[in-house]
Amino acid sequence: MGPRDGLQNEKRILSIEEKVDLINRLSDSGFKVIEVGSFMHPAAVPQMAATDEVFKRIAKKSGVEYRALIANLKGVDRAFACGCKKVKLNVSASAAHNRANLNKTPRESMSGFPDCAKAARGKGLDISGSISMPFGSPWEYKIPIADIETIVDSYLDVGINEISLSDAAGMAMPDHVFSVCAEMKRHYPEVKWILHFHNTRGMGIANMIAGMQAGIDWFDSSVGGIGGCPFIPGATGNVASEDILHMFHEMGIETRVDLGSVIEIARTVRTLIGHDLPSFVLKAGRNSDLLPLSGGMA
Amino acid sequence: MGPRDGLQNEKRILSIEEKVDLINRLSDSGFKVIEVGSFMHPAAVPQMAATDEVFKRIAKKSGVEYRALIANLKGVDRAFACGCKKVKLNVSASAAHNRANLNKTPRESMSGFPDCAKAARGKGLDISGSISMPFGSPWEYKIPIADIETIVDSYLDVGINEISLSDAAGMAMPDHVFSVCAEMKRHYPEVKWILHFHNTRGMGIANMIAGMQAGIDWFDSSVGGIGGCPFIPGATGNVASEDILHMFHEMGIETRVDLGSVIEIARTVRTLIGHDLPSFVLKAGRNSDLLPLSGGMA
Repeated sequence: MGPRDGLQNEKRILSIEEKVDLINRLSDSGFKVIEVGSFMHPAAVPQMAATDEVFKRIAKKSGVEYRALIANLKGVDRAFACGCKKVKLNVSASAAHNRANLNKTPRESMSGFPDCAKAARGKGLDISGSISMPFGSPWEYKIPIADIETIVDSYLDVGINEISLSDAAGMAMPDHVFSVCAEMKRHYPEVKWILHFHNTRGMGIANMIAGMQAGIDWFDSSVGGIGGCPFIPGATGNVASEDILHMFHEMGIETRVDLGSVIEIARTVRTLIGHDLPSFVLKAGRNSDLLPLSGGMA
Repeated sequence: MGPRDGLQNEKRILSIEEKVDLINRLSDSGFKVIEVGSFMHPAAVPQMAATDEVFKRIAKKSGVEYRALIANLKGVDRAFACGCKKVKLNVSASAAHNRANLNKTPRESMSGFPDCAKAARGKGLDISGSISMPFGSPWEYKIPIADIETIVDSYLDVGINEISLSDAAGMAMPDHVFSVCAEMKRHYPEVKWILHFHNTRGMGIANMIAGMQAGIDWFDSSVGGIGGCPFIPGATGNVASEDILHMFHEMGIETRVDLGSVIEIARTVRTLIGHDLPSFVLKAGRNSDLLPLSGGMA
């Protein structure tokens, strides 16, 4: 999520060349899914205004999915025009968040799904969906599971069966993540679920593991942990890619992503955006970065 | 752990009055166990040199355990002399760490346990034990479970059956924490286990939950997440008390600790030590700190 969710709140707008290089290095490091950018109105998300041009210039590696977030039909057209083959819709389970983010009620957002899905399919694009604030909202606090299911149903109604649950405000707690995910897996076995956690309150990795325990095995992350939340001052971004790769590798879970390369990319990103990053492994190094025994014994 | 493990690596040495106020505020906020300081040689740990005086001046709240870390018999004497009623021994499961930290082999450290335990009991003091690096070492990497069990046996041999497992280097991973803790609970049902995680690589809370899933329900933390590790540059301290209290309360687990007070104490500590703290809730606030609905809808 680094190139999209990670960069979209950053003050410094990266150049097209910098973004292309970042994305190419991410695909070279082994990531199989990269959210390249979004096709929102440039005035609303200036950092993403050049997504069309970025798409045209990135190396399209075989077997890698290059995805973009869209808000409406216009996003489908822009995606098609620049060679983006996968788009992602979004709606928030929090009415207040959907209003603040998209200036629509959730119902109004969902009413646009059929046309977008039809248009995407007509142009040969894959389409997925995301649901923001499923585990809690900074406006309404608790989100009823029925509200999540209403949105899932509206995605399934238009043939979208890849859905991410996006805790953009970082309010999820592991017990709740487990019970919601277990219920989603039970109720909708046909859905490919993706979990998207921000580390706002330090719970990102614990929540990921709770999701794994409920049987989900796709997770979003951002290189360096870049990102934030426009509604929560000082909020961090997604869980850092290198932190979860480090965990997976230490736990013996194969990812086919090169951790050393990702740490190098995080270093570059830190330089490009000009401030410290919330990544842990970037600061502390890997478990396997051992101290010399002689020095340690001194 | 804030007053001891948290402060011991800080450059600015807090005054006795500042420490007494910190500890009194922690006990007032509801913590039932506070590690006040250590009785090491003042030259080795200057930040803890005044622990004797701090002990004399703190308000001893009924029902609160005020504990100190010791390295040898001298620590028992100092504890007794200043009114400290509970001491904690330490040895590392990593030979290199034990050498670097205490200038002894683990076997030499363990050989001091009988005299310390006997002296403590003779003076009416409680005594507990801790094991550093049980989940990994920055020198040896993996630590065999047999090495942990050798230390546990040496504690049990001298009647010490409260033992903390201290991941001071922040190398633990949840799957390993679960399997080690489950094995410890099975092998030593008579032991009261405490888990102590540093958040060096962002795994602290996930590890705590893995420990809970293995049946352990005592955890160390430090207010504000203060602390570090002298061997790992840039390492953070213990998991922040306010982050785990926030999690427990959101998960419906009663702690009888007042989260608001702890956040206020973390603010004070941040001012006293003069730099930013790794605590998440201190920056982002609580889940229940809701945004105004009207503002959100605007």
